[in-house]
Amino acid sequence: GDTIILANYLIERLRQLGVTQMFGLPGDFNLGFLDYVEDSDAIEWVGNCNELNASYAADGYARVKEGSIGVITTTFGVGELSATNGIAGAFSEHVPILHIVGVPSTSQQKTKPMLHHTLGDGRYDAYYKASQQFTISQATLTSASSAAAEIDRVLTECVVTARPVYLMLPTDLVHERVPTKRLKTPLNCEPPENEEEVENFVLDEIVKLIDEAKQDVVILVDACSVRHGVKHEMEQLVAKTKLPVYAAPMGKTAVPETYERYGGIYVGSITKPEIKEKVESAKLILSIGALKSDFNTGNFTYHIPTNRTIELHSDHTKVQFAIYHGIGMKRLLPKLTARLENLHVTASQISVPHFTLPIPQEDDQIISHTWLWPRVGQFFKPKDVVIAETGTSSFGVLDVPMPKGSIFISQILWGSIGWTVGATLGAALAARDLGLGRTILFVGDGSLQLTVQELSVMMKTGVKPIIFVLNNSGYTIERYLHGETRKYNDITNWNWTKLLGTFGGIEGTSCQSYTVRTKDELSALLDNAEFAKADKIQLVEMIMEKNDAPRGLKVQAELSGQMNKYGS
Amino acid sequence: GDTIILANYLIERLRQLGVTQMFGLPGDFNLGFLDYVEDSDAIEWVGNCNELNASYAADGYARVKEGSIGVITTTFGVGELSATNGIAGAFSEHVPILHIVGVPSTSQQKTKPMLHHTLGDGRYDAYYKASQQFTISQATLTSASSAAAEIDRVLTECVVTARPVYLMLPTDLVHERVPTKRLKTPLNCEPPENEEEVENFVLDEIVKLIDEAKQDVVILVDACSVRHGVKHEMEQLVAKTKLPVYAAPMGKTAVPETYERYGGIYVGSITKPEIKEKVESAKLILSIGALKSDFNTGNFTYHIPTNRTIELHSDHTKVQFAIYHGIGMKRLLPKLTARLENLHVTASQISVPHFTLPIPQEDDQIISHTWLWPRVGQFFKPKDVVIAETGTSSFGVLDVPMPKGSIFISQILWGSIGWTVGATLGAALAARDLGLGRTILFVGDGSLQLTVQELSVMMKTGVKPIIFVLNNSGYTIERYLHGETRKYNDITNWNWTKLLGTFGGIEGTSCQSYTVRTKDELSALLDNAEFAKADKIQLVEMIMEKNDAPRGLKVQAELSGQMNKYGS
Ligand SMILES: Cc1ncc(C[n+]2csc(CCOP(=O)(O)OP(=O)(O)O)c2C)c(N)n1
Ligand SMILES: Cc1ncc(C[n+]2csc(CCOP(=O)(O)OP(=O)(O)O)c2C)c(N)n1
Ligand SMILES: [Mg+2]
Ligand SMILES: [Mg+2]
Repeated sequence: GDTIILANYLIERLRQLGVTQMFGLPGDFNLGFLDYVEDSDAIEWVGNCNELNASYAADGYARVKEGSIGVITTTFGVGELSATNGIAGAFSEHVPILHIVGVPSTSQQKTKPMLHHTLGDGRYDAYYKASQQFTISQATLTSASSAAAEIDRVLTECVVTARPVYLMLPTDLVHERVPTKRLKTPLNCEPPENEEEVENFVLDEIVKLIDEAKQDVVILVDACSVRHGVKHEMEQLVAKTKLPVYAAPMGKTAVPETYERYGGIYVGSITKPEIKEKVESAKLILSIGALKSDFNTGNFTYHIPTNRTIELHSDHTKVQFAIYHGIGMKRLLPKLTARLENLHVTASQISVPHFTLPIPQEDDQIISHTWLWPRVGQFFKPKDVVIAETGTSSFGVLDVPMPKGSIFISQILWGSIGWTVGATLGAALAARDLGLGRTILFVGDGSLQLTVQELSVMMKTGVKPIIFVLNNSGYTIERYLHGETRKYNDITNWNWTKLLGTFGGIEGTSCQSYTVRTKDELSALLDNAEFAKADKIQLVEMIMEKNDAPRGLKVQAELSGQMNKYGS
Repeated sequence: GDTIILANYLIERLRQLGVTQMFGLPGDFNLGFLDYVEDSDAIEWVGNCNELNASYAADGYARVKEGSIGVITTTFGVGELSATNGIAGAFSEHVPILHIVGVPSTSQQKTKPMLHHTLGDGRYDAYYKASQQFTISQATLTSASSAAAEIDRVLTECVVTARPVYLMLPTDLVHERVPTKRLKTPLNCEPPENEEEVENFVLDEIVKLIDEAKQDVVILVDACSVRHGVKHEMEQLVAKTKLPVYAAPMGKTAVPETYERYGGIYVGSITKPEIKEKVESAKLILSIGALKSDFNTGNFTYHIPTNRTIELHSDHTKVQFAIYHGIGMKRLLPKLTARLENLHVTASQISVPHFTLPIPQEDDQIISHTWLWPRVGQFFKPKDVVIAETGTSSFGVLDVPMPKGSIFISQILWGSIGWTVGATLGAALAARDLGLGRTILFVGDGSLQLTVQELSVMMKTGVKPIIFVLNNSGYTIERYLHGETRKYNDITNWNWTKLLGTFGGIEGTSCQSYTVRTKDELSALLDNAEFAKADKIQLVEMIMEKNDAPRGLKVQAELSGQMNKYGS
């Protein structure tokens, strides 16, 4: 037909972007819209336990489903504000999420009655104003005539900037008809062209510096290379040039860690010595998609002078001290690769340390961090999706080499604990959609407590993650930062292996839970083919020491301690 | 001493306000402050499972501990933003909460490094700006010299306006010393004086209208009478004048429901006929602390013309159409009472319906709403604190007469589901502090899923609420509003009676769970003295029909349906 119902217009745009699932909760201002979602073949309504978890799920979904976006639908006030932290985290870490909020009708927006879910003082724009702090773009739909264009605008911004956007959908507009016409043209989500003259100048500058460095160059990949969709362009660059590649923590698995020219993780002072030496002694660093936050840089301890650094970003390029606005890496990279055609001859001679993590010999049976991470590393398979929570886990996994085609996700800049539980749900759904492997989560006992109910939605949707719970009696990462023996770092011990059964699973049938207390027990479990198959959701409680942490965290804690004076 | 550490200054001010518990979670920007809290004798650190739940707990605490405030401490970004919805709800419903946020040091606030928990773009003021939408007053502590005055300013605003306030506490200032001097003067939290001339004018106007009405006047009490601390003044008024008193839903228990001149709940068109007639036929309504939201007024169906209405508010008075700014009820009420000395002679003649709810005879064993609410009404005792979640519960409890000294709390304007679970924790702690009775929660299966982990903190703190879970297979209230058979209104069924045991309780020892499927089973449990004693935390799963609802909800749903066009 010539026209289409607005709700279906939106759903169709999402389908075009590859969205298959929508997260969120119903509420009386979005129920009308949800009718269309439930009736659509394109998009499945997930239905989360709460809105924060839903936003985390949308985030995890978007991270795994590169090029697509995560979508969450909530209700006015109570629903949307519950998701604030999740949306802000997506902003911080460059994750594209569309936040659809069902709001009162266009006429109520004008007369402003004291409806439930309002602040009681007639400020109908308060939530919108708050959302402006955490989304890159916002739209309030006010009439059918402008609605389709507004939807297209925020969706395009969402994908191009890889940031969350906010869409207010009034109850009455949901059913209005809009022209079908725009749908025939897919959204143009390509980044804007680089200005040719500037781009050429930048290319010349970069090539000149590489020559001057006598090809002694290393590539350092980071978060935004994945989030701004240049994985393919980057692969071309490293394959053609044979330059050594390292990754910042947030760039882990952006380049396959099995790649022969890949040397491991660089995190400033926290870097293992053999890697640190290689990176910091290079004459030039070509950094791709950097997000130089404290935990991503070993507390800002890159020992790399700016005049030896080239930084490629999604919307600008930095060559030594010079910034070139509007020169984005997506279009620059292929041209750079073309200009470096002969580099491989010399570059391939530069030695790269082999990224491995052998299992240490330890005489006791305690599941220590030094032993745990290399051991689970052996359990990982190609195409697994591995998720690590802020805490000892996120530091521990960093040193583990990941198999080919596997994906590592973590929230190293935003660092909101509990995020992984929702993110695992979203990631597992995306992985299922893409035909990836198992989804494997490492989460601390403290963090799991924030968002635990989402285990229930995992079971409802039938995803089958393996969830390793590090039971170390509380907030160990914090004990390292401050307050080692403080009560505020203790938590209540739960019956972790009862969780799945309580939240709707049938232990032994639809779910399986385990407690492991020793190295041998964990090893046996990991070697068990039935377990490794992951054909049901599984939770493994690992009993660990309260005061043990991975190497990286110990160093980080010292560095942070110097910066934050906790005093007394 | 002459000086005191800033953290202790703040703690001392809280102690002066009667605060005994602090809610929240640790995070590396507040750990220094938490040391002082943990070391203080005045305030107990609760330590919640997540920040939203913590904000709900602070809200529940403040509601029960009238005259004091709720306090929540969170960490920069991730922590504080998780609490947004809870703080906004407190704003909406006039609940005083101090939100303390541990933030980076004063020097980091200036240099703005890309720390974890930042948005990655240097906007260190984004969270503060968002908080401005949901708090009445904010303070960023920037130096020791102004810190104490700033703390006093926001605390005073918090109490006087009965709204949440926001306090940014940088890591370095926590340990600074400030003069002790201000502490010697307790905060002046009295509302400002009314301007005498205007006040006298208003009193004359009111008395004149009452005379004209030939004493045919009823009093209607609402939320703000409690929240703005005029319960006592109101009691004097009703005792002296003997006028009939009714309550809006949000004013339930503001006046004891056993009071002989009390006639029950008035909610516009949803009101029971015998009450409706009495209220709407009165010549004059004296409304105290009204918050006229949709669900508090039967969807704006008060059949009371403005020229028959006098409204007393915390900061203004409305006589018919005239608004008198700055004339607050706290000071007006005693003077009004004094002016109405002889009213009781005639007023006591006005008949008031007796507020009762007999248990109906039903032939089946189904736990229906018509039967449930009068039945549990018989279970309530003086001084109980009863909490009802948005959903069938909040509508159901309204019709139940509450015993003397009992307190009813619900979130009728904000209506964020899951709120009661945190609020029950806070309310139970406040109740324990004040020597009140049992804390009794009615919560839907859907709502409990949002915030369930806080059951664990109830057990940690040793409070012993009775938690009735209405298991009606999903979001029944929504089924009444729209989408009766829609999948989005279904939820996963949990093993509800396993929750306490999973979250750290020992079933039969520190906790006890029950499932009741019939009227007889529930009756037997309610009659069981051991159960009624509530000497451990107890959870009662009640199996109910998916499509059953209390009378009030059915009417409300019809009224809302007319207003919100869900269409299709
Ligand atoms: C939402 C949120 N609240 C609080 C914090 C502060 N915080 C950071 S790590 C941490 C403790 C994590 O403990 P756990 O998950 O048990 O990890 P582990 O013991 O393995 O370090 C806390 C409370 C945070 N980052 N995010
Ligand atoms: C935070 C939040 N999310 C969503 C909603 C929309 N909502 C209102 S009531 C309700 C269902 C409540 O279901 P339940 O607790 O089971 O109550 P009952 O079945 O007894 O009506 C929902 C989802 C809300 N009010 N608050
Ligand atoms: Mg832990
Ligand atoms: Mg229900």
